[in-house]
Amino acid sequence: MVDEDQHDQQQDERYLREALELAARGPLPDPNPRVGCVLLDAAGAVVGRGFHAGAGTAHAEVVALADAAARGADVRGGTAYVSLEPCAHTGRTGPCAQALLDAGVARVVHAQSDPDPVAAGGADLLRAAGVPVDSGVLADEAEALNAVWTRSVRLGRPVVTWKVAASLDGRSAAADRTSRWVTGAAARADVHDLRARCDAVVVGTGTALADDPSLTTRWPDGSLRDRQPLRVVVGDRDLPSRAAVLDAAAPTLVVRGHDPAAVLETLHGKGIRHVLLEGGPTLAAAFLAAGLVDEVVAYVAPVLLGAGPSAVGDLGITTITDALRLEPTDVTVVGVDVRVTARPRATTPQKEIV
Amino acid sequence: MVDEDQHDQQQDERYLREALELAARGPLPDPNPRVGCVLLDAAGAVVGRGFHAGAGTAHAEVVALADAAARGADVRGGTAYVSLEPCAHTGRTGPCAQALLDAGVARVVHAQSDPDPVAAGGADLLRAAGVPVDSGVLADEAEALNAVWTRSVRLGRPVVTWKVAASLDGRSAAADRTSRWVTGAAARADVHDLRARCDAVVVGTGTALADDPSLTTRWPDGSLRDRQPLRVVVGDRDLPSRAAVLDAAAPTLVVRGHDPAAVLETLHGKGIRHVLLEGGPTLAAAFLAAGLVDEVVAYVAPVLLGAGPSAVGDLGITTITDALRLEPTDVTVVGVDVRVTARPRATTPQKEIV
Repeated sequence: MVDEDQHDQQQDERYLREALELAARGPLPDPNPRVGCVLLDAAGAVVGRGFHAGAGTAHAEVVALADAAARGADVRGGTAYVSLEPCAHTGRTGPCAQALLDAGVARVVHAQSDPDPVAAGGADLLRAAGVPVDSGVLADEAEALNAVWTRSVRLGRPVVTWKVAASLDGRSAAADRTSRWVTGAAARADVHDLRARCDAVVVGTGTALADDPSLTTRWPDGSLRDRQPLRVVVGDRDLPSRAAVLDAAAPTLVVRGHDPAAVLETLHGKGIRHVLLEGGPTLAAAFLAAGLVDEVVAYVAPVLLGAGPSAVGDLGITTITDALRLEPTDVTVVGVDVRVTARPRATTPQKEIV
Repeated sequence: MVDEDQHDQQQDERYLREALELAARGPLPDPNPRVGCVLLDAAGAVVGRGFHAGAGTAHAEVVALADAAARGADVRGGTAYVSLEPCAHTGRTGPCAQALLDAGVARVVHAQSDPDPVAAGGADLLRAAGVPVDSGVLADEAEALNAVWTRSVRLGRPVVTWKVAASLDGRSAAADRTSRWVTGAAARADVHDLRARCDAVVVGTGTALADDPSLTTRWPDGSLRDRQPLRVVVGDRDLPSRAAVLDAAAPTLVVRGHDPAAVLETLHGKGIRHVLLEGGPTLAAAFLAAGLVDEVVAYVAPVLLGAGPSAVGDLGITTITDALRLEPTDVTVVGVDVRVTARPRATTPQKEIV
C-alpha cells in the first residue's frame, strides 16, 4: 500500500505545517516553547486548532480540544497533530498526553520530541495506552521555531548572549569612563531589539553604579516598549534606591554573589531561557572564563580611544595559543558600526543533557 | 559650428581614454604618477604612443615622440593627448612641455592638471608659446588612476595607511606578547597584498626588537614577491645585525628619532608616496595623535584575549567626546576576520597645498 502511505505522509506534513504556523503565533521570548495543534475527527475533517499563548495559559492541545468542543465536534477516533511531543507531566496544566487520551484521539503525530526530561514521556504514555504515535515529522523545523528554548532545556540553564560594544581598539569607554556614545544610533537601536528578544538583561553592580543604565527596552524615540525583559543586577554592592535600574519601568532582580553558574541557576528557576549579558568587563570575563557564554554579539565602532576600560576583563589567558576563539556566524554593518555575531569555538557547558 | 565642436570633444575623449589606458600600464606603486600619451600628426592619424614606465625612465610624452620618430612620422602641426599636464621642470628628464614644443605639436589636450607646484606650469608654458591647450578633459578618471600620488603631492608628504590587527577586545598580542596568530591566514595574506601596494612599511624599533618581523611581501607559500617595499624602522634603539628586518630580502632604512612628521619628511624626500604603518602601539599612537594617518585598515579577529598589549597606545584622549572617530569606507569579511577600512573624520594635515 505504498500509495496510501505516501498520501498519509503528505497529509501528516500538511497538518503539521499548519500546527507549526499556529505555534509561531505564540509569544517570544517566553519560558515555554511555542506549540501548535490541529485536531482531525474520525472522518479526517479539521475540527480544532490551538496554540500556546505563553506561560500561564493553556497548552496547545488543550486549546485545540476546547476549540473542537466549542464547535460541538467529536474527536473520538480522530488524529492530533502537534508541533511538539505532548507533555506527560502535571505543571500549571495537566498532562496533555492524558487529555488527548481522555478525548479519545486514536492517533498522534508530533514533530519535535520533548528535550525536557521532566516533561518528556508523552509519546510513551500514549503508546502504552494503545494510541499509535508518529514522532519526528518536520522535527528540524519545529526545533528551529524553539531554538533558544530547546538549547536552554538541553543545557539545563538559560542560553547566554554576551553583548559588547567597543571601539576598534577594544575600549568600552573613555579614560574618564564616559561611554555615550561609543557606537552610533543604529547600533544602539539594534541593542534594544536584542534586549526585546531576551527574557533577562544582566549587568554587574559595578556597571549599575558607574553608568546608571535603565536596561529597559525602548523605541528610538525613547518610549518604552510594551514588553520588558527582567533586569538583573549581579553583585554584593548596594544600589541607591534612585538607581535607574530600580525604577518602575520593568521588574528588577538583584542577585548577590558573583558566580555565573549560580546566577544562571537562579534565573533558570525563574523560567528565564535567554539571558543578555551586558557587562561590565569583570562580569563578562567571569561568564566567558566559566564557559557560560553561548553567543557573542559585538558592536565594533570605528572609533579609537587609546585608553579607557577594556571591553572584557582578565580571562586568565597568558599566551596566544590559549586565546578564546570565536566562530563568526554573521557580520553586518549597522549604521557606522560593525556587528559581529559569533559563538565560542570550544565552550565547556556546565551541563549538557543531550 | 556646434557639430564640429561635438566631434572634437568626442575625439578628444577617445584619444585621452587611450592615453589613460596606456598610463595604466605603468608600475604601481612608484614615486612618479602613471601617465600615457597619444600623438596625432597634422592629418589626425595616430603616429605615436607612450607611457611612463616608472621613476628613472622617460616620461610618456618623450616615449611617444620617440615612437613617432621611430616610425618616421612627423608630428609637426599635430595634437598631443596626455593623461597628465606635461611637466615644465627639468628633473631626471627635461621638461615635456618643451619637448612637445620642439617637436612642433600644434595642440595639446590633457586630463588631470599637475597638482605638484614644482612640476606644474606646462600648460602655461605651451600657451605662452602659442600652442592652444585644453585642460581637464576626463580629469576625474585621470586623478583616480593616480589617487595616492595626487593625495601625496597635495599633502606634501607620503599618504599613510595604518594597518592594525587586533582581537575583538582590541589586543594586538597576548599577555606574554605572543601574537602568532591573532588573525587568520586569509587576513595575513591580505596584509601582504596591502604591503605590495605601498612604497614603504614602517615599524618602531620596539616592534622590530620584540617581534623580529621580516616586513617583506610574500606569497602564501612564503616565497618573496618580486617587488619589495622599503622597510623602515623608526627609533633610537639599536637593532642586532641578525634582525630579520636587516636581511638581504629587501632594502631597509633606519630613521632615528620618533617624530612622525620628520619620519614622513625623510621618506617624502626619497620619493615614497604611500607608507604602510604597521605599529607598534606607541608609534601608531604618535602618528594618530599628530593627525598623520590618512587611512586605517583594521583586521578585527573573532578572538578574545582579556589581557595583552593594546592595539594602540595612549592618544591623549580622556573623554568620549574627544574620541578619534573614523569614517568607514569598506567592511569586508576576510576569512574568519573582519577588515574595516576607514578614514579619520577630522585629520589635521600638516600641510595641504590645495
